[in-house]
Amino acid sequence: MSTPEIRPFTDADWPGVWEIISEVVRAQETFPYDPGLSSSQARAMWVEQPPGLTVVASSGSSVLGTAKMGPNRGGPGAHVATASFMVGAASRGQGVGTVLSRFAVDWARRSGYAAVQFNAVVETNIAAVRLYQRLGFQIIGTVPRSFEHPSLGRVGLHVMHLEF
Amino acid sequence: MSTPEIRPFTDADWPGVWEIISEVVRAQETFPYDPGLSSSQARAMWVEQPPGLTVVASSGSSVLGTAKMGPNRGGPGAHVATASFMVGAASRGQGVGTVLSRFAVDWARRSGYAAVQFNAVVETNIAAVRLYQRLGFQIIGTVPRSFEHPSLGRVGLHVMHLEF
Repeated sequence: MSTPEIRPFTDADWPGVWEIISEVVRAQETFPYDPGLSSSQARAMWVEQPPGLTVVASSGSSVLGTAKMGPNRGGPGAHVATASFMVGAASRGQGVGTVLSRFAVDWARRSGYAAVQFNAVVETNIAAVRLYQRLGFQIIGTVPRSFEHPSLGRVGLHVMHLEF
Repeated sequence: MSTPEIRPFTDADWPGVWEIISEVVRAQETFPYDPGLSSSQARAMWVEQPPGLTVVASSGSSVLGTAKMGPNRGGPGAHVATASFMVGAASRGQGVGTVLSRFAVDWARRSGYAAVQFNAVVETNIAAVRLYQRLGFQIIGTVPRSFEHPSLGRVGLHVMHLEF
């Protein structure tokens, strides 16, 4: 596969982004989001306002994946960024997550954040954990049994961190 | 001081609660919230809807402190509760935080949650850290330099956890 293009989300992307989000949240394997999330709730949650940013990874008119990024907390915590990534089922294992996560880290660095924090990485999502570790993220700690996986039972959520 | 009464927040409590929140967020010493938070933004953030709960610690008609509690995450993460506590400047050191945090832990246990997680406890807020440890919370990890303290510089935020 050629490298997907990363570009800011536009209204026309919503149907493709929502298809990915709805599949990911219904699977309940990687995100601690309500699987009954409506399209409008998902849109309010996923589409960031400045200073945050939402992007899509696209190939032609297809949305292969999406990412959102912005400050992790407010006020005295706003110098640390966070980000989330979702890749469509048909596009996994092709480097789309790598391209999106590299983009988010570069965005945070060039926007002047001091670090990037992921608050809840499912420990059994090995592809994501290894990808973040390759980018330099460290596991700060793991909250045990805090994610109810549909087949594996209660597994841990990692807090991961990369400081610039 | 006699033990304050803990009761559900009602509309009439907002002026007293807002006075506490605005002082706490402007101090920027204990919460990673935007210090420019408006009253309506604060109210939307602090006053929980079911299954969450917001309470006040009161003595007569005075609001001494307030707490909010509810699920920490959605879907596969909704079996873990979280909570936040604020005590008015004039009422600190009198056990109001202890009463509020015991209430929240008891509420979570009796509501059927499996654990309580605090996501961002400022490591220099020693009174809070020790109180939570006395209640049985453990520090899962500390995200270094993730909170910009007005006099101490960038200090860590603890993730703390109590499993039932």
